[in-house]
Amino acid sequence: MAGTKHGINKDLYAVIMAGGKGTRFWPLSRETFPKQFLKIVGERTLIQETIHRLYGEVKPSNILIVTTAGQSDLVKWQLMEVLDDVKCVIEPEGKNTAAAIALAAFKLHKKNPRALMLVLPSDHYITDTEGFRATVRRAAEEAQKGNIVTLGIKPARPETGYGYIKAGSRLRGGVSRVQKFVEKPAMRTARSFIKEGSYYWNSGMFLFKASVIIEELKKYMPGMHKAFSGIGAALNTKKEDAALANMYGSLDSVSIDYGIMEKSKKVVMVAAGFPWSDIGSWSALDEVLDRDTEGNISLGNVVGIDCSDSIFFGGGRLIAAIGLKDMVVVDTSDATLIAPKDQVQKVKDLVGRLKEEGKEEYLSPKVEDRPWGWFSVLEKGPNHQIKHIYLKPRAKLSLQMHNHRSEHWIVVAGTAKVTKGEETFFVHKNESTFIPATVMHRLENTGLVPLRIIEIQSGEYLGEDDIIRSDDSYGRKTG
Amino acid sequence: MAGTKHGINKDLYAVIMAGGKGTRFWPLSRETFPKQFLKIVGERTLIQETIHRLYGEVKPSNILIVTTAGQSDLVKWQLMEVLDDVKCVIEPEGKNTAAAIALAAFKLHKKNPRALMLVLPSDHYITDTEGFRATVRRAAEEAQKGNIVTLGIKPARPETGYGYIKAGSRLRGGVSRVQKFVEKPAMRTARSFIKEGSYYWNSGMFLFKASVIIEELKKYMPGMHKAFSGIGAALNTKKEDAALANMYGSLDSVSIDYGIMEKSKKVVMVAAGFPWSDIGSWSALDEVLDRDTEGNISLGNVVGIDCSDSIFFGGGRLIAAIGLKDMVVVDTSDATLIAPKDQVQKVKDLVGRLKEEGKEEYLSPKVEDRPWGWFSVLEKGPNHQIKHIYLKPRAKLSLQMHNHRSEHWIVVAGTAKVTKGEETFFVHKNESTFIPATVMHRLENTGLVPLRIIEIQSGEYLGEDDIIRSDDSYGRKTG
Repeated sequence: MAGTKHGINKDLYAVIMAGGKGTRFWPLSRETFPKQFLKIVGERTLIQETIHRLYGEVKPSNILIVTTAGQSDLVKWQLMEVLDDVKCVIEPEGKNTAAAIALAAFKLHKKNPRALMLVLPSDHYITDTEGFRATVRRAAEEAQKGNIVTLGIKPARPETGYGYIKAGSRLRGGVSRVQKFVEKPAMRTARSFIKEGSYYWNSGMFLFKASVIIEELKKYMPGMHKAFSGIGAALNTKKEDAALANMYGSLDSVSIDYGIMEKSKKVVMVAAGFPWSDIGSWSALDEVLDRDTEGNISLGNVVGIDCSDSIFFGGGRLIAAIGLKDMVVVDTSDATLIAPKDQVQKVKDLVGRLKEEGKEEYLSPKVEDRPWGWFSVLEKGPNHQIKHIYLKPRAKLSLQMHNHRSEHWIVVAGTAKVTKGEETFFVHKNESTFIPATVMHRLENTGLVPLRIIEIQSGEYLGEDDIIRSDDSYGRKTG
Repeated sequence: MAGTKHGINKDLYAVIMAGGKGTRFWPLSRETFPKQFLKIVGERTLIQETIHRLYGEVKPSNILIVTTAGQSDLVKWQLMEVLDDVKCVIEPEGKNTAAAIALAAFKLHKKNPRALMLVLPSDHYITDTEGFRATVRRAAEEAQKGNIVTLGIKPARPETGYGYIKAGSRLRGGVSRVQKFVEKPAMRTARSFIKEGSYYWNSGMFLFKASVIIEELKKYMPGMHKAFSGIGAALNTKKEDAALANMYGSLDSVSIDYGIMEKSKKVVMVAAGFPWSDIGSWSALDEVLDRDTEGNISLGNVVGIDCSDSIFFGGGRLIAAIGLKDMVVVDTSDATLIAPKDQVQKVKDLVGRLKEEGKEEYLSPKVEDRPWGWFSVLEKGPNHQIKHIYLKPRAKLSLQMHNHRSEHWIVVAGTAKVTKGEETFFVHKNESTFIPATVMHRLENTGLVPLRIIEIQSGEYLGEDDIIRSDDSYGRKTG
């Protein structure tokens, strides 16, 4: 982490909200692989960018990711590149933002009664890192005074896809009272908001003291407050998981906006001028990526004839497009989406239809079943490939080697028994090991709970057939 | 072959033209895998249908397929299901229809001076088999008199995609002189043709005596006639291939329509009333396949929301379409085409662009390279898979077995040395062998020329990883 001129506020914590379902960016995102895990803009995924943006502003050990069990492996895998120690708070189930923020607030307040919480979605687009940090510092000053700060974004256009905040009286430089929160408007209303000048986009980014939000929860969401107070003794201990599992189902599923922001008298808005997008749909890529001279955005393997103002988002497979205008084409290894830009929000209906028709396999990244469990390919490049591997209890892979690839294994759940050349050893959760090419190796789950690992392969050839098996428990090789 | 009431004319030969490049149905067809090999309508491929339609009308041993070396393996593989003995005439290179017909005519005339030739494209749509056969019988009567018969199709609509024949004076029932051949017309002209009543679609199907077409070649294409006369002694002998290789490059590339039909005085037209299409582009599927209530044609794995009048042609991968109207989407394992129906003919430009951009891999079915050669998957179903396998000279596959699949191997070129359990034996060109599941086997090319086989796998699991290697020449297994 680079040093900065101002000192880092040791009481400032970042709470990254990484729950959510991956519907709007289907088929690239999936229910179990939402948008924050995608490289939509640039070399890092959105959640990696979100963390990276905090360097020098928040202590790395003060960064907390609130997520669900199903996504925590992916969070750990992706954040290992940007954080030494990935701290996840795992909700037993997704319960909207109020519960997630309450959980983080009670945990942080118990640990540090002076804790300030910067609450950030994990999947927003912000490229002006300096502008973002300056805004955070300004917001932290306000939060220190006991205010609940919401970040309002100066609107760049009459957008109908965002909620708005109407700023009230001006308090100090860049800080206003909030007169009201406004739902997504019609175009005519959105235009009048721009003209009027005191409306800001509601970004869903907040900054407040943990103690203050807990007070407000007590006042406006007493049920939620009581539920978390009730398990206060268990928080930050080994009993936390069980305590949460026991009470979480009964929590109301309410957004922090509705539950607290629209009611609390302590809410102020800090106006932010940096370019921002929540990248709410495929058509929003127009706001965040550069278009070519025909107005097209083309990522991946695309050949187009007479196309204009369209978005092509592919991978290794070829997208061949003729005469498309204002269309979106998204191509993945198992599914292709084609829709006009102005109808792409119906992808939610389409995901619903997939469920109705029993095509659930398209709601997760493509999984390959194996006798010992399964794997899915999370990322595929010309010289590297990342897999999520699941071993059933007591399962083992064959004793094998590869001529052309090395493998890096990170254990994200369970305990791995690893054979590597002549050695045999155990690799525990959050530990890793490296298997060079041509070294005989075996991965085994001797435990009674599933073993999950992230495997990063690298080499000049990554085909499944580069495997030399010496001993296999599933009869895939004879003597 | 089912018996029929009338006797089969033993002098009647069918000459199936199976050359051509697979551009118009890209990406399902490829340069090396043209339209005739596709199952576009029904359970059989177009070339299989073309043969099947002749059952009871032409002796199976009188069916000849004119093709090029690059496609003869595929022809043999596909026709093995419908013919006991597949007779291919292999052109050294494609030289348009006049050369292909001349070659067949000289060969047939040498074999049987009374030979009548029914010349048929391999990739047309005809479902009224009885109507087709009745027309063939009528045409054969005319050809027997020394006429060159061209089949004209009563137009079903003012089509601008076909050439037309203007019928002249009526000779006998259903038989007319030809007044003129007309190029593809503009819509206004096409409409006037329909109104006028004496215009027929030029189907590219012909019937004539081999001796008659040879006379006409002498008169109107003396260079072509001389070239084939010059190698007359070699035809139908082992010297044929070398003789053809020597002279074929110098032949004019001219259509039979232009070279003979538009000039010969012996041409008559037999009018046919059966529904017909040359399925000249993806949008032509509207003419030959049933649409649903929204006007869509959906083949394969398709989920659509608010789509109408569109064509979806996919396989195992999911096509997810929203709000498409009058669009064509074609999805294959390595490429997806998206185009409005009225621009789908630009697929030719797109194929040209692929060549320019060095993406030649999309001009052939997807090939997987292996140390011993390569394979491509020709067809993939839930419980079967067909592969084209190429072994370099002296190459051998590993000694292996599969738990879940049996394999049927047909040698289409070269000689295979096969190990099957305890036995070792040779399988020659046009022979086959069967390897049941769990039997150890090896395929080897001990020869000096490439070995090509068609492999038909069947079983409940067809993954590449169901392979147990016992001995491998390429280091893919240690002891």
